[in-house]
Amino acid sequence: MSTFGAKPREDITNPCYERRVRFHRSFRVRFGDADPAGIAYYPRFFEWFHDAFEALFEAATGRPYAEILGRERVGFPAVQVATEYRSPARFGEEVQLEVFISRLRPRSATFEYRVKREGVLLATASIKIAVMNLDRFESAEFPPSIAAALYAYVEEDAERPDVARLRG
Amino acid sequence: MSTFGAKPREDITNPCYERRVRFHRSFRVRFGDADPAGIAYYPRFFEWFHDAFEALFEAATGRPYAEILGRERVGFPAVQVATEYRSPARFGEEVQLEVFISRLRPRSATFEYRVKREGVLLATASIKIAVMNLDRFESAEFPPSIAAALYAYVEEDAERPDVARLRG
Amino acid sequence: MSTFGAKPREDITNPCYERRVRFHRSFRVRFGDADPAGIAYYPRFFEWFHDAFEALFEAATGRPYAEILGRERVGFPAVQVATEYRSPARFGEEVQLEVFISRLRPRSATFEYRVKREGVLLATASIKIAVMNLDRFESAEFPPSIAAALYAYVEEDAERPDVARLRG
Amino acid sequence: MSTFGAKPREDITNPCYERRVRFHRSFRVRFGDADPAGIAYYPRFFEWFHDAFEALFEAATGRPYAEILGRERVGFPAVQVATEYRSPARFGEEVQLEVFISRLRPRSATFEYRVKREGVLLATASIKIAVMNLDRFESAEFPPSIAAALYAYVEEDAERPDVARLRG
Repeated sequence: MSTFGAKPREDITNPCYERRVRFHRSFRVRFGDADPAGIAYYPRFFEWFHDAFEALFEAATGRPYAEILGRERVGFPAVQVATEYRSPARFGEEVQLEVFISRLRPRSATFEYRVKREGVLLATASIKIAVMNLDRFESAEFPPSIAAALYAYVEEDAERPDVARLRG
Repeated sequence: MSTFGAKPREDITNPCYERRVRFHRSFRVRFGDADPAGIAYYPRFFEWFHDAFEALFEAATGRPYAEILGRERVGFPAVQVATEYRSPARFGEEVQLEVFISRLRPRSATFEYRVKREGVLLATASIKIAVMNLDRFESAEFPPSIAAALYAYVEEDAERPDVARLRG
Repeated sequence: MSTFGAKPREDITNPCYERRVRFHRSFRVRFGDADPAGIAYYPRFFEWFHDAFEALFEAATGRPYAEILGRERVGFPAVQVATEYRSPARFGEEVQLEVFISRLRPRSATFEYRVKREGVLLATASIKIAVMNLDRFESAEFPPSIAAALYAYVEEDAERPDVARLRG
Repeated sequence: MSTFGAKPREDITNPCYERRVRFHRSFRVRFGDADPAGIAYYPRFFEWFHDAFEALFEAATGRPYAEILGRERVGFPAVQVATEYRSPARFGEEVQLEVFISRLRPRSATFEYRVKREGVLLATASIKIAVMNLDRFESAEFPPSIAAALYAYVEEDAERPDVARLRG
C-alpha cells in the first residue's frame, strides 16, 4: 500500500499540512515564445511547465532532476494533458507560474500548473505523469524518498481544468 | 444560425458525406524531437499538431494558412487541449498523424489528432480552437468560405480522449 | 589516409562526378517558426538544418538516421557553425533548402545549407560536424559505408559564408 | 559619426572603462534541451543566447525588451552567426553563460556568448545583429539611449571564435 497516498488533506492532524506549498516562478514571455500575433505560442507553455516540473523536483528533493533520473533509473513521461487557455500571454509580459500536485499515487501523479499575470488566471493545466523504469520502459513506483519529498506539494481538493466542456 | 453546424453526420443524404476525409501525414521522429530517454518529448507533439493544422487548412481551402490570417484578419488560438499519450514515439520511428474535426461551430472548432505507428495508436489529442479577430483580439466567426472548406473534415461522432480519467 | 577525401572534384574522370547532387527540400515557414515581427526566428533555421541533415543521411545511405546512430554507435555533434542571414523568411513563405557537403574528412565533415525563396538566397550556413563514438564520447572515424554514401554530396569548391566579415 | 564607437578601450581615461561588465546567467541544462545522447541539442544554445540577449537589454536599459521593440519600432535580427562547440553540455549540468559586446556600431552590434561549466569553456558564439526599422523592414540606427546603455558591455579586444578554421 502507498504510504504517501494514505494521508487525506482533511486530516487536520497531518503533520505535513502546514508546510503544504506551491512552487512559484516568475518570468517574462520571451521573443522566441511569441508568435506572429505577438502572443505566446501554445506549445511553449508545455516547455515552461516541464522546466518548472524539473525545478519543483529539485526544490522538493534537494537533488538535481537529472541525477534522480540517472541514479533511480526512473523517468516521468506525460500520459494525460488537459489545458485551458483563458487569456493570451503577450510577448514581454511578466507572468507567474504556480505548480502543485493534485493527485499523488504510487505509480503516477497529476501536476497542476497555473499561469497568471498580476493575479489574473491566463492558463490552467493538469498533466498526469507516470513513473517509468528507464531500463525496462515499464511502469514503476515512485522511489519512496521522492514520493515523500513531493508530498509537501499535494493539494487534493484543487479545482482543475473543466475539460468536460471540450465535449459540450 | 450556423449553416455548417446544421448538417448532422447521420443525414445520409448529406452531399458532403461521401467526401468526408481525414488529413494524413507521415514523418519520422527526428533527433531534435527526442529526449535523453530516446522518445519524443511531449511538447513536440503540439508542434507536430500545429504544423498539420496549418497544412489541413491549406489542403481544405487551397490557400496558404498565412494568407488566411493576413487577409481575413482572423487567428485560431488554442483554448482547450486534452491529450492522452498511450505509448512512446521513439527517435527514428516513422509515425502517421491523422487530423480531423470533431466539432465545428460558428466561433470555434475542435480538431482531433491521432498519432499511430503501423496502425497502433500512440497518442490522441482534442484541441479546441477559437476564432479571434486579429485586429481587436476578440471572438469572431469563421469566414464562410473557411467554414465550408473545413466541413469536409468533420466527424462529429468520433471517439475522443477520455480526459475524465484524469480526475479518477 | 582518407580514401574518400582523395578524389578532387576537378578530376573529370572521377566516376562519382556525374552523380554529384544536392539534397533539396521545400517547405513553408510555419506559424511556430515565426516571431512577433512575422519572420522566422533565427534559431529555427538550425532545426530545419538538422532535420534536413538527417534526411540527407537517409537519402544517401538508404538507412534511417536513428538506425545509423544506434547500430554504428556514432553521433555527429556540431562543432562549428557559421551562418549569414541575408533576407528574412516570412511566415507563410515557401522556401527551398539545399544541402551539400563542402568538406569530407575521416573524422569530420562540413555541411552547407542554402535557404532560398524563388531563387533568391535568404540564408547560408556552414556547419562542421565531428564523428563521435557514442559509447566513449570521443572522436571517431566515419564508418566506411557512411563516408562512401555521403561522397555523392561533396562539392569542395563551393563558396561559403564570409564569416571573416564578422570581424570587420 | 558614431559617438559610441569613438571611445577605444585602450583609452584609460575613458570614464566608462571601470563599469565595463559582462552579463552573467547560470542555469541547468533541462530535459527538453537534451538530445538522445543526453547532451544539449545545438539549436537550443541559440534560444539560450536570445533569452540572455533580451535580459541584457533589460539590465542595460532598465526597460523591458518588448517595450523597446514596441515603442522604438526597431528590431534586432541576427545577420551573422559564428559558433564553436568545444565540449558538450550534458542534461542536468549547471552552466554559466556570459554575454558581452565585441563591436558596437551605429547600425549593428556583435554580441559574444561564452558557455562555461565550472570555469571550463564549452561553447563560444559571436552573433552580429542589425538594427531594423520594424515598420519599413529596413536598416536603422540604434536609438541613442539604447546605444549608450549597451556601451557598458563593450569589450572590443575580446577573443572570438576562430571561424577561419572552418575553411581549413
